[in-house]
Amino acid sequence: MKRKILFSMLLVFGLSLGQAQSEKDAAQIKKMYNSVLTEGKAYDWLNHLSNQIGGRLSGSVEAQLAVEYTQKELKKLGLDRVWLQPVMVPKWVRGAPEFAYIETQIGITTNVPICALGGSVETPNGGIKAQVIEVQGIEELAGLGEDKIKGKIVFFNRPMDPTNISTFKSYSGCVDQRYSGAAEAGKYGAVGVIVRSVNLRLDDLPHTGSMSYGETPVEQRIPAAAISTNGAELLSTTLKLNPETRFFFNQNCRVYDDVESFNVIGEIRGSEFPEEIMVVGGHLDSWDLGDGSHDDGAGVVQSMEVLRLFKGTGYRPKRTIRVVLFMNEENGLRGGRKYAEVAQNKGEQHVFALESDAGGFTPRGFSFDCSDENFAQIESWKPLFEPYLIHLFVRGGSGADIGPLKDPNIILSGLRPDSQRYFDHHHARTTPLNM
Amino acid sequence: MKRKILFSMLLVFGLSLGQAQSEKDAAQIKKMYNSVLTEGKAYDWLNHLSNQIGGRLSGSVEAQLAVEYTQKELKKLGLDRVWLQPVMVPKWVRGAPEFAYIETQIGITTNVPICALGGSVETPNGGIKAQVIEVQGIEELAGLGEDKIKGKIVFFNRPMDPTNISTFKSYSGCVDQRYSGAAEAGKYGAVGVIVRSVNLRLDDLPHTGSMSYGETPVEQRIPAAAISTNGAELLSTTLKLNPETRFFFNQNCRVYDDVESFNVIGEIRGSEFPEEIMVVGGHLDSWDLGDGSHDDGAGVVQSMEVLRLFKGTGYRPKRTIRVVLFMNEENGLRGGRKYAEVAQNKGEQHVFALESDAGGFTPRGFSFDCSDENFAQIESWKPLFEPYLIHLFVRGGSGADIGPLKDPNIILSGLRPDSQRYFDHHHARTTPLNM
Repeated sequence: MKRKILFSMLLVFGLSLGQAQSEKDAAQIKKMYNSVLTEGKAYDWLNHLSNQIGGRLSGSVEAQLAVEYTQKELKKLGLDRVWLQPVMVPKWVRGAPEFAYIETQIGITTNVPICALGGSVETPNGGIKAQVIEVQGIEELAGLGEDKIKGKIVFFNRPMDPTNISTFKSYSGCVDQRYSGAAEAGKYGAVGVIVRSVNLRLDDLPHTGSMSYGETPVEQRIPAAAISTNGAELLSTTLKLNPETRFFFNQNCRVYDDVESFNVIGEIRGSEFPEEIMVVGGHLDSWDLGDGSHDDGAGVVQSMEVLRLFKGTGYRPKRTIRVVLFMNEENGLRGGRKYAEVAQNKGEQHVFALESDAGGFTPRGFSFDCSDENFAQIESWKPLFEPYLIHLFVRGGSGADIGPLKDPNIILSGLRPDSQRYFDHHHARTTPLNM
Repeated sequence: MKRKILFSMLLVFGLSLGQAQSEKDAAQIKKMYNSVLTEGKAYDWLNHLSNQIGGRLSGSVEAQLAVEYTQKELKKLGLDRVWLQPVMVPKWVRGAPEFAYIETQIGITTNVPICALGGSVETPNGGIKAQVIEVQGIEELAGLGEDKIKGKIVFFNRPMDPTNISTFKSYSGCVDQRYSGAAEAGKYGAVGVIVRSVNLRLDDLPHTGSMSYGETPVEQRIPAAAISTNGAELLSTTLKLNPETRFFFNQNCRVYDDVESFNVIGEIRGSEFPEEIMVVGGHLDSWDLGDGSHDDGAGVVQSMEVLRLFKGTGYRPKRTIRVVLFMNEENGLRGGRKYAEVAQNKGEQHVFALESDAGGFTPRGFSFDCSDENFAQIESWKPLFEPYLIHLFVRGGSGADIGPLKDPNIILSGLRPDSQRYFDHHHARTTPLNM
């Protein structure tokens, strides 16, 4: 029965009729698909989260509205228990819209779209204007040294590799510039950092995302912003024509004291082994610029839909099924850490956790962080999923929020949707601001 | 080598790195994917066809512009030969925008969005107003008989089945109402036919599509229109409340004499067996209401991209590779028939034909209409495609345009993309007209 519950949870993340290892299993899967396709609630919930609430950065009013909305909606499902788990989260606020331009040696300026990176300090009053040094990555900094970097703005311009089928691999290949660029460039006396948006598309939408100053003392922290991919191309071309080109940027972002927020949790108690817990989840917070529909509204509503499906199809699980809507994945992971801490303190036994945090495009399958034996068992269920075009069962990472639950006795899993266009939307507005 | 050329053609329809049966084959596939992902032309071409030209119904100025544009673009690729194959096509013109309303017994009217079905006659001068009889399909007509149908408008309202993973199955399940509804209802004295749009989504966009009067004499032909799915729901509800409800519609569509148009063809001659021909194609015409981007602009530009990839990666095929952009798939299939006729007259030897006419969503794989032996061989290449998430190799139909080539010596194949949302866009405008 454990395996039945597990695949029931897996299947509802994917969305035919075909061969099945077991007719009963196949019939239950079909029942769940039919329910999703004819009475699914996910898109209604996603519409509310994305279009009625919008961007839900930790500590914001919108994040609180999302907590209240999802708690209310979970209660409507008639679960055995719905509760809020308090967690202190960082509060970073963007402030007034950022402003930036490229200035050639003869004083011609061209405005370009930027946005402060999440966690960045503000610029000094009135902004910063300085010469620019373009690099393709952090490793170039040591070669250039303080001589060539001091007093300048470092422009990290390594693009995403467009040839990967999994664009997450391309993301991993250049996100270090965004996360650690300011801390590293600051060591050589840079006055600011501009980072090419982590986006495969050429457009005018700058992409924010988390960054860290590491151990850098507060007074030595330099402001960091992302520039749109089109802006990065323009800046790079302008620098090639004229290395004396200067860049101006102004941002008013700021860190406030931590505030209280919540993970939103709901569960259906297992009928036979209620002490064994299976988690499905996504993160409720999002970056402030976009509507958070892909990152990670999709994961939130898919996770809620799993529990709705168990109730809606009258399937009473033998183990406890819990949906966890994590707070603060984007800039702190406090929700994921708190959930694991509380679970450990209570001595809860988690046997499986599945996270959806890779966007709302077509589901392809799942990655699994588990033992060889467990993986072999999971792979044997593949034929049950194939009629629904779920074909990808691979070893690999799961999700940031469920990572803290890692233990030899738990199977961690991540939903794998199509990723080709995910980074078009990831941490950006959907339409440009007027500059 | 035959198999190398075949899978090269197949692969470029799909869009990682993984295990391969042959390192050389895998390297060539990777080369083609890299080219598509970094210098692909398909989206530029599709933008022109959809946004600069737009709907390209056979016999229209737009269809002719599409012929000229794709011929010009194929010539730029440096193929061995590019030519136009003349074909006479039907010319049906929609005329002034259609107009329709529901009228209750007490005279309250509500406008609803309709569009004439392709090939329908116009309404009598000033339109038709009549009582409505709702049916779920053609088979209900005989039971009702002339008594209950004569003088009325027959409203075919069977919806698409939302529970199929392949929505083409749902399409097949109700398209008979659209295609033959008017011919069948006319036999019982109906004065007109209104058909629920073949669309899974509830929206305000009526979907056109081909219909036929079969052997019905010209003077007995009754006008047929599609109503939007929201309009169909409203009409059905109104009829339940008041069976005396009347429906008015007016349309000015008309059939003109056939006109000359063209299939657009380009080829790379095979280096060893030039007389053996492999075809890849889609159809250049589209319905007039939308921009024809999914049906079948996507298939056209994917097919053109195949030949660009052979040239771009310097892969000289041993057999001749031909791209055929068929004219008039939507309302006549004249282009497909003409191509097969000319091929037969010339004694050309076709060994493989692949059609893409299922939209531009994520590619999943291919269906094959071929011998068991050929299918077994094709299936053995699956591992070469899996790194690119191409996983679906099934027996089944290919495409309407290549159908006339069917012969025991040819392998026919169809691209299988995701279909869940395809019918949202199929034969409709992208935004509603003001009524």
